[in-house]
Amino acid sequence: MAPAGGPGAKKGILERLENGEVVVGDGSFLLTLEKRGYVKAGLWTPEAVVEYPNAVRQLHMEFLRAGSNVMQTFTFSANEDNMESKYFEHAEEAMWAVEVLKALGKPVAATMCIGPDGDMHGVSPGECAVKLVKAGAAIVGVNCRFGPSTSLKTMKLMKAGLQAAGSKAHLMVQSLGFHTPDCGKGGFVDLPEYPFGLEPRAATRWDIQKYAREAYKLGVRYIGGCCGFEPYHIRAIAEELAPERGFWPPASDKHGSWGSSLNMHTKPWIRARARREYWENLLPASGRPFCPSLSQPDV
Amino acid sequence: MAPAGGPGAKKGILERLENGEVVVGDGSFLLTLEKRGYVKAGLWTPEAVVEYPNAVRQLHMEFLRAGSNVMQTFTFSANEDNMESKYFEHAEEAMWAVEVLKALGKPVAATMCIGPDGDMHGVSPGECAVKLVKAGAAIVGVNCRFGPSTSLKTMKLMKAGLQAAGSKAHLMVQSLGFHTPDCGKGGFVDLPEYPFGLEPRAATRWDIQKYAREAYKLGVRYIGGCCGFEPYHIRAIAEELAPERGFWPPASDKHGSWGSSLNMHTKPWIRARARREYWENLLPASGRPFCPSLSQPDV
Amino acid sequence: MAPAGGPGAKKGILERLENGEVVVGDGSFLLTLEKRGYVKAGLWTPEAVVEYPNAVRQLHMEFLRAGSNVMQTFTFSANEDNMESKYFEHAEEAMWAVEVLKALGKPVAATMCIGPDGDMHGVSPGECAVKLVKAGAAIVGVNCRFGPSTSLKTMKLMKAGLQAAGSKAHLMVQSLGFHTPDCGKGGFVDLPEYPFGLEPRAATRWDIQKYAREAYKLGVRYIGGCCGFEPYHIRAIAEELAPERGFWPPASDKHGSWGSSLNMHTKPWIRARARREYWENLLPASGRPFCPSLSQPDV
Amino acid sequence: MAPAGGPGAKKGILERLENGEVVVGDGSFLLTLEKRGYVKAGLWTPEAVVEYPNAVRQLHMEFLRAGSNVMQTFTFSANEDNMESKYFEHAEEAMWAVEVLKALGKPVAATMCIGPDGDMHGVSPGECAVKLVKAGAAIVGVNCRFGPSTSLKTMKLMKAGLQAAGSKAHLMVQSLGFHTPDCGKGGFVDLPEYPFGLEPRAATRWDIQKYAREAYKLGVRYIGGCCGFEPYHIRAIAEELAPERGFWPPASDKHGSWGSSLNMHTKPWIRARARREYWENLLPASGRPFCPSLSQPDV
Repeated sequence: MAPAGGPGAKKGILERLENGEVVVGDGSFLLTLEKRGYVKAGLWTPEAVVEYPNAVRQLHMEFLRAGSNVMQTFTFSANEDNMESKYFEHAEEAMWAVEVLKALGKPVAATMCIGPDGDMHGVSPGECAVKLVKAGAAIVGVNCRFGPSTSLKTMKLMKAGLQAAGSKAHLMVQSLGFHTPDCGKGGFVDLPEYPFGLEPRAATRWDIQKYAREAYKLGVRYIGGCCGFEPYHIRAIAEELAPERGFWPPASDKHGSWGSSLNMHTKPWIRARARREYWENLLPASGRPFCPSLSQPDV
Repeated sequence: MAPAGGPGAKKGILERLENGEVVVGDGSFLLTLEKRGYVKAGLWTPEAVVEYPNAVRQLHMEFLRAGSNVMQTFTFSANEDNMESKYFEHAEEAMWAVEVLKALGKPVAATMCIGPDGDMHGVSPGECAVKLVKAGAAIVGVNCRFGPSTSLKTMKLMKAGLQAAGSKAHLMVQSLGFHTPDCGKGGFVDLPEYPFGLEPRAATRWDIQKYAREAYKLGVRYIGGCCGFEPYHIRAIAEELAPERGFWPPASDKHGSWGSSLNMHTKPWIRARARREYWENLLPASGRPFCPSLSQPDV
Repeated sequence: MAPAGGPGAKKGILERLENGEVVVGDGSFLLTLEKRGYVKAGLWTPEAVVEYPNAVRQLHMEFLRAGSNVMQTFTFSANEDNMESKYFEHAEEAMWAVEVLKALGKPVAATMCIGPDGDMHGVSPGECAVKLVKAGAAIVGVNCRFGPSTSLKTMKLMKAGLQAAGSKAHLMVQSLGFHTPDCGKGGFVDLPEYPFGLEPRAATRWDIQKYAREAYKLGVRYIGGCCGFEPYHIRAIAEELAPERGFWPPASDKHGSWGSSLNMHTKPWIRARARREYWENLLPASGRPFCPSLSQPDV
Repeated sequence: MAPAGGPGAKKGILERLENGEVVVGDGSFLLTLEKRGYVKAGLWTPEAVVEYPNAVRQLHMEFLRAGSNVMQTFTFSANEDNMESKYFEHAEEAMWAVEVLKALGKPVAATMCIGPDGDMHGVSPGECAVKLVKAGAAIVGVNCRFGPSTSLKTMKLMKAGLQAAGSKAHLMVQSLGFHTPDCGKGGFVDLPEYPFGLEPRAATRWDIQKYAREAYKLGVRYIGGCCGFEPYHIRAIAEELAPERGFWPPASDKHGSWGSSLNMHTKPWIRARARREYWENLLPASGRPFCPSLSQPDV
């Protein structure tokens, strides 16, 4: 949950959305810093901010270079000032939080970590969205727990719920950077691979371009990522929507669109990969013939 | 090719190996910095050192924290001072380089980017190793182009070749952080997923612990990684061989061995994953049921 | 649609169901005879009955030996006397047929080739079942088009629909012998593998034992198969439900239950496979690492 | 091992090969009759010939209709008159058998059930072939234990061995109807799926057309199948090589070449499958996303 339009780095997010702009969110802090050696898996507490401020600052820089409009205070799961937490499993809890923030006079963005099957009490995504708007949220959506296409399914249901109820809100999506078509209601934490065997599920940049385009078509204007979203995934959003936003992210100086930087390669068969159709249609192999393609969630 | 035992960060590598110590190498610079937004895929030139020194320094820090003993000058593919390049496809070329460095009075580490089928002229790994030692290399091995188990197959052949010829050298392996059982002679660059669709092939930390153990059993004492090796992969080597080295890497303060940090999780089925057998036996799913598990290389 | 309880081979099916007996159906005629060289794929017309009566009789014998209680007149798709056809895509059409048969004073079994998403006009499985019972069917269910677990999902919905409407009927299921979790509404004919590349989807005998048990638990008492159901699949139903039926099928004289016939094998690791847990837990590999595990249906 | 050119059903095989004709073998008896309910897995004894002669005769008929030139006496594994057995794991044993038959004045066809790694004593396929010819065999090759492409690899090695030794013989291949790229030296019996979970590995007719063409190109002129080869697989050989043989098999009256019989289908997307390119390029899905694509052999 993020106070939108307040002072500081977040200033202007709501204004931007009201103006019809696309807002590109940021990506994964905890899982990414875990892989860099600064965060411990399990309770996922964010003391890295204090212990290793350079490492955190570096990652912030990377997301900004990648095109992110926002600058999260990285305090997810922190005990105090939990306003960044976007991790509600229950509609009711999320509503309380929205009401408190609203009472402080702040426009509020509220996201839930639910999938198409709704919250833990069986409240559907459509109903959740309507409740959040009624409680005062100006921006509603989902974050974490589910992969790109699953999260977009949930957003479609949220949008339909809002339309049916005549409610209005800006839409926001921040999916995992992992593919999870086999998730149950609890999301990726229930998959046997969580959290130390998720590698084969990691999205490519092309998967994320597709996600960004589909989110945009659905009417979502705040598009970002959560666990598993590396800087180059954020850049993929910013590049896919560069025509709509009217500018390219700084990190595109190190990225040829759709693989075009391969056109100078010495091997002709690698040069042949320097085109959009190639990467859009690639079905990437896992290199793991002894592994399945889907798992049964533990619950 | 790295002058070993010279001044600076590399000082002492040969001495360490002579003392029977394990040397933990570092990992991926170019592919990792590409994903962070600082290097352009294709020609993979290393101007990031000059343009974004903080980003490069940060990654160096991460590898050091992860337990790496070495500090590569990050100049792979640079036009001048190409002494770090460890990317010989041809035994003959590698020999020339070794002879030049040797003439400068430096003990030399020479690695080739070959697989079990040998170099581009059909010189077998065993013969390559023998030639390099004859030319003066004190440390021989492979780096890049092939995944962990393929690289170890090559090392086994190098070792056998050296033994058969009565040659002696320290062994060194720096595999990809990607699984490539389907590679042809040319390695991963010939796979259709190279370089922008390799995600599903990424090794887990457990894959790398296994790699480190097998390399050690084979007699390899310089164990590191190449493209795709993130800091947590290097930490996995350092943790697996902590008993042999007698110490844990700094970044283990943020890592419970074999998933033990999960034992505080609120959900019992996630706590149940806090044990070695679980992660050792996991067959991680790709989450991609429409994709194959192997690819045909382009050549 | 089969007149149940009428004279001839079908005599007694309804009586048996009324008595609480399990009726084991038969399996695949057209696809199986195609592979034996007697039926042409495409229009799937059944002239084999006239042209190659021995081949048809032989297959009938095999199904009977496997434990089938029924003896279908093999005239699926034939122009006249289409009473065996169990291939309705539309609830309305199926109702007309039931009404006609009912008018002839015959108790009627009516199955539809629909999946969990219902018929081509969006009528749900539950509604379809209720309509068929209202039209006079004594036995309702599904046949063909969908694999074992998908067909059972549809049956669950039919059962729930009947219960909700206070309707009563015997339940009948005749799934494909192929796994089709990736089917759309149209079923397996829309999968790219239909009809000449379905081999990797073929069910094992153990898959079918599981299907038989789950169907039984759900309350289904007429359990058989359709395209892809070979004689040994029918035997698997009859063996799984032998305790409930009180007898084993004739062809079990050539089948050790749960692989027990392997206990005489000369190789110990093959003898180790002579047990239920082994086969129940086996995840059989496709031997096709270049192929995906799911397909996108054509529509 | 089959006396070729002797009296009875086999008469003329050697003559045909000498004339440059293609001989189409037959397929699977034991595994196929097991699935039809007439043979018990495990010891795989052939008493079905006596117990169920109609079932055996029917299968013979199907192979003949499919285009087979040969009529095996179905006595594989029988205690006496084991002359049909083509199941030698050891070159030496095979040689003794050839010498005995040769002493009877019969031209001999000798096949071994070995893969590219050779026999159980490490005798390579090339050496095996040379030994068999020296012992008197006129036709040499492989049967059973390995899938189509693995068997062709072995044949390539046999051919090379014969050429290197200046030996001459007709070549014969009878592969499994299952894909086994993951087999060890012992072949498919060591795979965990043997014998009751092999379904997902079953070859399509198109796989077999490819096998027939490649065998032909390699110079093999006796082309048939073994376990898992159903009548339509034999027909696929006969159809692929119809141009060379100058005639189509009888069962092609029920088969449109390359799926052409689909061109009358009512659904346009199914009609679109009535062409060679479609089936040649299809990568058929397993429908089993929870299963791997390869297995580890038990030994």
